Amino acid sequence: MKNEQLYAMRHSLAHITAAAVKRLWPEAKFGVGPVVENGFYYDIDLGERKISEANFAKIEKTMRGIIEYGDDFERFEMPIDQAIDWAKENNQPYKEELLNDLKRSGTTIAKDLDVSELGLATDGDAAVENVSFYKNGIFTDLCRGPHVANTKDVGVFKLLRVAGAYWRGNENNPQMQRLYGVAFATQEELDQYLENLEQAKLRDHRKLGKELDLYTTSQLVGAGLPMFTPRGTVLRDVLAQYSNQLRQARGFEKVWTPHITKTSLYEASGHWDKFGDELFLVASQETDDKMALKPMNCPHHTQIFASRPRSYKDMPVRYLETTTDYRDEKTGELGGLNRVRSLTQDDSHVFCRHDQIEEEINGLLASVKELYGTLGMKLRVRLSYRDSGDGYLGDNELWESAQSQLKSAVIANDLEYFEQDGEAAFYGPKIDFMATDAIGREHQLATAQLDFVQPGRFGLQYTDAESNPQTPVMIHCALLGSIERFLSVFIEHTAGWFPVWAAPEQVRILTINDTVMDYVEEIKTILSDVALDKPVKFNEVRFTTDDRNESLGKKIREAAQWKIPVQLIVGPKDQEAREVSVRTQSGEGKIALSQLSEYLRGL
Amino acid sequence: MKNEQLYAMRHSLAHITAAAVKRLWPEAKFGVGPVVENGFYYDIDLGERKISEANFAKIEKTMRGIIEYGDDFERFEMPIDQAIDWAKENNQPYKEELLNDLKRSGTTIAKDLDVSELGLATDGDAAVENVSFYKNGIFTDLCRGPHVANTKDVGVFKLLRVAGAYWRGNENNPQMQRLYGVAFATQEELDQYLENLEQAKLRDHRKLGKELDLYTTSQLVGAGLPMFTPRGTVLRDVLAQYSNQLRQARGFEKVWTPHITKTSLYEASGHWDKFGDELFLVASQETDDKMALKPMNCPHHTQIFASRPRSYKDMPVRYLETTTDYRDEKTGELGGLNRVRSLTQDDSHVFCRHDQIEEEINGLLASVKELYGTLGMKLRVRLSYRDSGDGYLGDNELWESAQSQLKSAVIANDLEYFEQDGEAAFYGPKIDFMATDAIGREHQLATAQLDFVQPGRFGLQYTDAESNPQTPVMIHCALLGSIERFLSVFIEHTAGWFPVWAAPEQVRILTINDTVMDYVEEIKTILSDVALDKPVKFNEVRFTTDDRNESLGKKIREAAQWKIPVQLIVGPKDQEAREVSVRTQSGEGKIALSQLSEYLRGL
Repeated sequence: MKNEQLYAMRHSLAHITAAAVKRLWPEAKFGVGPVVENGFYYDIDLGERKISEANFAKIEKTMRGIIEYGDDFERFEMPIDQAIDWAKENNQPYKEELLNDLKRSGTTIAKDLDVSELGLATDGDAAVENVSFYKNGIFTDLCRGPHVANTKDVGVFKLLRVAGAYWRGNENNPQMQRLYGVAFATQEELDQYLENLEQAKLRDHRKLGKELDLYTTSQLVGAGLPMFTPRGTVLRDVLAQYSNQLRQARGFEKVWTPHITKTSLYEASGHWDKFGDELFLVASQETDDKMALKPMNCPHHTQIFASRPRSYKDMPVRYLETTTDYRDEKTGELGGLNRVRSLTQDDSHVFCRHDQIEEEINGLLASVKELYGTLGMKLRVRLSYRDSGDGYLGDNELWESAQSQLKSAVIANDLEYFEQDGEAAFYGPKIDFMATDAIGREHQLATAQLDFVQPGRFGLQYTDAESNPQTPVMIHCALLGSIERFLSVFIEHTAGWFPVWAAPEQVRILTINDTVMDYVEEIKTILSDVALDKPVKFNEVRFTTDDRNESLGKKIREAAQWKIPVQLIVGPKDQEAREVSVRTQSGEGKIALSQLSEYLRGL
Repeated sequence: MKNEQLYAMRHSLAHITAAAVKRLWPEAKFGVGPVVENGFYYDIDLGERKISEANFAKIEKTMRGIIEYGDDFERFEMPIDQAIDWAKENNQPYKEELLNDLKRSGTTIAKDLDVSELGLATDGDAAVENVSFYKNGIFTDLCRGPHVANTKDVGVFKLLRVAGAYWRGNENNPQMQRLYGVAFATQEELDQYLENLEQAKLRDHRKLGKELDLYTTSQLVGAGLPMFTPRGTVLRDVLAQYSNQLRQARGFEKVWTPHITKTSLYEASGHWDKFGDELFLVASQETDDKMALKPMNCPHHTQIFASRPRSYKDMPVRYLETTTDYRDEKTGELGGLNRVRSLTQDDSHVFCRHDQIEEEINGLLASVKELYGTLGMKLRVRLSYRDSGDGYLGDNELWESAQSQLKSAVIANDLEYFEQDGEAAFYGPKIDFMATDAIGREHQLATAQLDFVQPGRFGLQYTDAESNPQTPVMIHCALLGSIERFLSVFIEHTAGWFPVWAAPEQVRILTINDTVMDYVEEIKTILSDVALDKPVKFNEVRFTTDDRNESLGKKIREAAQWKIPVQLIVGPKDQEAREVSVRTQSGEGKIALSQLSEYLRGL
């Protein structure tokens, strides 16, 4: 299916929606009805009448009637003044307004509405003479097209929701009702889309965050400042630990810096001029110090690098810090873990020589690849280069060399990639990683960014083999990005069924009755002694026991609600046979007690 | 040696110091000369002449002459007016001023000087008639006493330092020279004291922090905001890990909270009224939110407790968080790690029923005891109770019960303790832990504090067995206290020779020549596979290799400078015998390669 065909189908469905609404409520006045991602909408003014989801079945039935009737979409033109008369006669004031605007100037309309979405047969600044209409059956609409040939050709659709929308996006204008539909060429595609939508709702991390007791918020503490419960803290820690272990194996060392600084640090780095008004400012009541909460960690890390003389033999110097940054987001933009004011980064900075860029990027790519591979998320990479414009700092030769080193490293790691000129930051080229989740959504999480500017601003130096001072390059890299935002993706990606190594509660023992309590103690001793070692080392098994005087059915139901990946059911027969019944998402089976720790380590 | 005797010896030495100074510089005018901790001082006005350490030998020699001459200390009295005349005749204007003040009112003097330290034979408000003098040889001083019988009885002493001091502590008064001496009954005690003093200088954590590359500061970041290098970060992490593991074994679970909050949290907790002007205030530039950096974590933790309904069966709920608090200390008060603005607490909060206090305190005491035992620091405990005054919140019966539960737990843990009424906070009794370091200094680090107030202020509840709502008690407890401050103590306690489990670099391999490189690889493989498990679990061995083309002597010297606890020297003979030469602080020996990991685990 070509994109243009799908576009025409969706566009035609917008007309059919309007036709159906007009048939049901002849007083309907229409705004615009464009194609959007996965479907279309139409803005409708029904006066006091409110369309609700309860009306969808009736509208859809009427639409299906129109579709089955099989009218052709017929295109015709008329002079613009005649079109304005048509709008007046048909009581379509919004269309009339659009046509009048168009008459005054072929371009003004484009300022607040995408002119290509309107039925306006005009190009740019050309004087408008004729406008085009499309007619299907008794319904006629001002429209540029294109449309499918016949109403029968529109594929499959579903009305999805209705929402308020001000005419032309201006809150001083009347509020209309925007009726959304989704449409695809085949039923399978529509079903898949609706299934994903349903999945996304079920997986909503705000919903799961509450159900699985992962985090909480408090009005007293404020918006965008989530607090993590014991279960959520395990997730944070184990993910950060994994991310850190991957880099520690490649020579990164942990450092620690405070969350505040005098603003002089950002004046020196240059961040103050660029981002000064996006910072949380900190006021000392005891001194005149002008301070801020850190929105990033690089300037702090430069100060550790600068604290000792460095020689070329010491390079690269690799720092790692999982620490919380603060960004002064507007309260209205905050929600769940996706957008927060307290964002914890699994941040790292390499200070290296120019000839070490490729090897360092190589190691970081391998870490990112391993991490997202373990998480079952497909990776795609964007190489963001400079373009021919000016405003890029650092010399040309260094840029060329660095960009080719980045590309070599991406190829060496066998990553799917694309290149974009002009997407680099002014201070260096970068790699963005796009990870696809279990329901097909792509998220940009990890990044690796070269920096040719900050080391110079802070006067960072190492001495080369000839004892001359040289300025190192910095590489900023986070594997998870913001842990809070990563968790919002990870919770939805897994739907809360976290892999065993990451699950806050990995194992729950469910007793059938009290006769097995001694045997349960044996099992607990075994569990206490197990530490998983993949993908995270020294990962002690987190388990609980449900030995309440309740039915096994209830215990199993609750364990499933909590999405405990490994449930060990223990009854008198298991005790006798010295085994346990294991329930996981993939089924149920028996394991000999002597094999239990081996089994868990193999999960 | 009784305290009073030592006091008399030190007091007599102050007179002898003045006598010696007067013999050397007859123009000397004297202020006061009291006994202080470990010794004494005398305030002296020598006009333009400056006493320096270069003069100490001469002064001490003169003092020894006076001591050996063996005059008795003779006490006599004279009427106050006659005493004033004596001061005038002897050109002692400071003594004259004191006597005149005393004449006007027996008490005014006491406002800025400790009257007991002066030679004033008066009690309280009684009219002053006679004042007492002490005379030894030709030197006479206004003095209340007591003194030793004869100058020969003063024990051993040493002049320590001289510093400027304003007369009567007022900067508008003339500046005098305060000459300090230390004095003890025996030479051994003096030597021990001077040795400790020398040790304290050598152990200064600011000096060692730089030499061992543990932390750094930056003017751009600001005072009191240390940043930790890789080595220092290992120390922070491993200590926090130990502290956390001790409590996790007792049911504590980690939580995570942001470093900022709306001030409404502290208005609810009551901290705002009490400490509002000691907070770092945070200003949002995007919103009107009034925020602050957290100076403590309890209010945040209450919000996690409050996020779900709790039943008596869920209690106690135990949270653990190693997180950084910020306190707006004046810049002048900041220095090293001892007093900082960013203090990381190994904090924990228990929410429990009234009948669970003793068991919870018991567990915390056991953790504190184990930790300080491992660190080789003697512990002493202060039980701080309420007194009969009002101003204590929470009902009497609860206080009585809680205080007795605290005491029972202290006794059960066999801790040395003392009790102090009136030292409790208004919201509950507490336990302070005093730890003695390797050179005899006592530090207050850990605390455990009951809180009867905050749970009520936040409306925290659990339901009891009869489904009635009940308010829990909170227990605040940190084992290390502030990790920064703890490190300042720990670095000085160990003099930078950290125990193997805590050392940033635990093992260094020193090669004798290049022929052993294959063998070194074998050793490295063994070291990579070892994780120590006591006292901290999963403590991977942190090692480096010094295979530079340098002499072994130089390599050993550098390893000693870095205070690497385990140095493995590897030469061709070791390779042949498949062993390594191990150097530690306790000596040198050979270990078979096959025993190496066992050996390290046993350290």
